[in-house]
Amino acid sequence: MDNSELLQPIKTRISQLFGIDYPIIQGGMIWAAGWKLSSAVSKAGGLGLIGGGSMDAELFRRHIKKCRAAVDKPFGVNIPLMYKHAPDLMRVTMEEEVKIVFTSAGNPKKAAEFLKSAGVQWAHCVPTVKMALKVQDAGADAVVAEGTEAGGHNGFDGITTFCLIPQAADALEIPLIAAGGIADHRGFLAAMILGADGVQVGTRFAASIESSAHENYKKAVVEAEDTDVYLGFKSVGPVSMVKTAYAEKVKQSEWGGAGIEQLKELYGSGRGRLGIFLGDGEEGMFEAGQSAGLVKNIESAQDIVKDFVQGYWKKIKNSE
Amino acid sequence: MDNSELLQPIKTRISQLFGIDYPIIQGGMIWAAGWKLSSAVSKAGGLGLIGGGSMDAELFRRHIKKCRAAVDKPFGVNIPLMYKHAPDLMRVTMEEEVKIVFTSAGNPKKAAEFLKSAGVQWAHCVPTVKMALKVQDAGADAVVAEGTEAGGHNGFDGITTFCLIPQAADALEIPLIAAGGIADHRGFLAAMILGADGVQVGTRFAASIESSAHENYKKAVVEAEDTDVYLGFKSVGPVSMVKTAYAEKVKQSEWGGAGIEQLKELYGSGRGRLGIFLGDGEEGMFEAGQSAGLVKNIESAQDIVKDFVQGYWKKIKNSE
Repeated sequence: MDNSELLQPIKTRISQLFGIDYPIIQGGMIWAAGWKLSSAVSKAGGLGLIGGGSMDAELFRRHIKKCRAAVDKPFGVNIPLMYKHAPDLMRVTMEEEVKIVFTSAGNPKKAAEFLKSAGVQWAHCVPTVKMALKVQDAGADAVVAEGTEAGGHNGFDGITTFCLIPQAADALEIPLIAAGGIADHRGFLAAMILGADGVQVGTRFAASIESSAHENYKKAVVEAEDTDVYLGFKSVGPVSMVKTAYAEKVKQSEWGGAGIEQLKELYGSGRGRLGIFLGDGEEGMFEAGQSAGLVKNIESAQDIVKDFVQGYWKKIKNSE
Repeated sequence: MDNSELLQPIKTRISQLFGIDYPIIQGGMIWAAGWKLSSAVSKAGGLGLIGGGSMDAELFRRHIKKCRAAVDKPFGVNIPLMYKHAPDLMRVTMEEEVKIVFTSAGNPKKAAEFLKSAGVQWAHCVPTVKMALKVQDAGADAVVAEGTEAGGHNGFDGITTFCLIPQAADALEIPLIAAGGIADHRGFLAAMILGADGVQVGTRFAASIESSAHENYKKAVVEAEDTDVYLGFKSVGPVSMVKTAYAEKVKQSEWGGAGIEQLKELYGSGRGRLGIFLGDGEEGMFEAGQSAGLVKNIESAQDIVKDFVQGYWKKIKNSE
C-alpha cells in the first residue's frame, strides 16, 4: 500500500454534502478557530470552520475574507445562536456568500427559515436524540451529535459519544456527524462504525499550530492525562475544561454543595477569552474535551488530518 | 456468506486467555447475574460471570455449582473487593475451583497475592488509566476499563469509554476489556477499534430473559431513551441508574446543592436490591448504564451474543 492509497478520499454522505475529500470537520471553537486554522484544515481536505462565537461582525468578516484568500476549497462558519452578535454574524455570512453554516447553542427553528432560504448547507449541533430529530424536522442538511466528552459547552443530560451516536443514527435520516472524544484515527473509525457519516474534531485542532489559542492553553491540553479534564457547572450549563486552579475551584464548589447562584457567580463572564486566548489558567477557563488526554503534540492541521486519514485506511485495509 | 461463517470464532488475546469463542464478557452484575444468565452466556460462546456482590457465601456456592452443572464451557465470577462478604466469596471460589475471577471496587494489590498463588485467571475493573497500570503492576491477566456510561457503580472522574479505551490501550501491555455503553455489535466493533481486546456488557444482559432482575426493571431498561439514564451521587460515589421517581429525587437534590451528608442519607442502603431484584422504582435504584437506550427487547442471552457476533463479522466482511 503506497502513500497515495492511504490518502485516497473517504466517500460518505458528509464528504459528498460538503464537497470535501474527507468527512473530518474542524469544530468552530471560540478563541481558537480563526482563518488560519480553518483554511489549513480545508486545504488538507477536511472542512474548516471559522468560530464566530468570539468575534464581532467586522472581525468575522475579515476572517472569512482571509480564509477565502488562503484556500480555494470549501470552508464554513460556526455561529452559536444564543451569542449576542449571532444576527450580525448571520448577515455577514450571507453578504460574504459563505455556503456552509454550522449552528449550535440555540433553537434551530429560528435559524432554519433564514438559512434554508439562503440556500446554504446547514448543520446544527445537539446533545440528544430528541434535539437531533428537531433539527432534522427544521430542515437541516446534517446533524452534529455531540457526546458529553466534548470540549466547552455541553448538554445537560451527559450522554456519551458511545451511547449517543448509535441512537442518533437509528433515529435520523439525514447525515450524522459525531463529535466528542474524537482525537485520532481510532476515534474517527470507531465513530463511523457507531453510525456516523463524519466526525467533528475540536480539542486536537484547538491545540494545533494554526489555532489562535494561547501557548499556555495548548501546553495544558498536550500535558493533560485522562483524569485531567473536568465537566463543571453540570446543573447550570455544563462546560468541559482542562483542570487548572480555576477548574479545581469549580469542582470544590460543586462537590461541596454550592447552590445555583454561587455557581453562576463563579462562572462569571469572559473566562473563555481569559483562558483560551490569553492563557490565564488561574482565573480563565481552558475549555477542552476529554480527548485532551489523547493529544500528545502541537502539530499542524495538515499532519492531524493525515494522521486521521492514513490511520483510517490502514485499519480498513488490515481488516481485509 | 453463510450463517456458520457469521458465527466463526473471534480470536483475540481475551478469547485466547479465557478459552472462549468470542471476547464478549457478561458483567457480573448484582441482583441480575446468577447461574442462569452466566451459564447461558458461556453456552453461547461468551464468558458468563456470576455476580457475587449480592450473595452470601452459601448462595454463591449454589450458583457456582448450578452454573457448572448447566454448562461445560468456561465461566467465572465477579467479586467486588469492598463487599462485606468478599473474603468468604474468595474462599468459596477457591474451594469450588473456579478458574476465572473478575474483581472490582477495591484495591487490587490486596487480592493479587491470593489470586495469583491460586493460579486463576484474574481481571480487575478500573475507571482510569492510572488504576489500569496499578492492576497490571499487581500481576493481573487482564484489565477491564470501564467508561462513565457504564451501569451501577462508577469512577469519580467521569471518563467516557470513547476517551478511556484508547488511552488505556496505549498505556497497557496486558489485554484490555472495554466496558461502558456497549450494547450491540456496533459498540463491540467500535471498542475493538479503539484498542480493546474484548468487551464487557452489562445492561443488555441485565435486561435479558435469563437475568434474575425483576420484570419492572427489565421493562424500564427496554423503555429507556437516550436521556433516561442519570449518573447520580457524583460527589459521594457515582451510580448510573435509569430515571425513576427515586432517580429524579437524587437529581433534584444534587442540582439543588445538597451537601454530602444529605446525599449519603438519600443513598441509604439496600436500594439496588429493592430496585433491581424487587422492582420498586419509587424507592429502589434501577442501576443501569446509558446503553439502556440501545436495548429494545428482552431477549435470550444466546440471541444477544449472536447479534454481537453476526453484526461484527458482517461489518468486517463488508469493509473488504
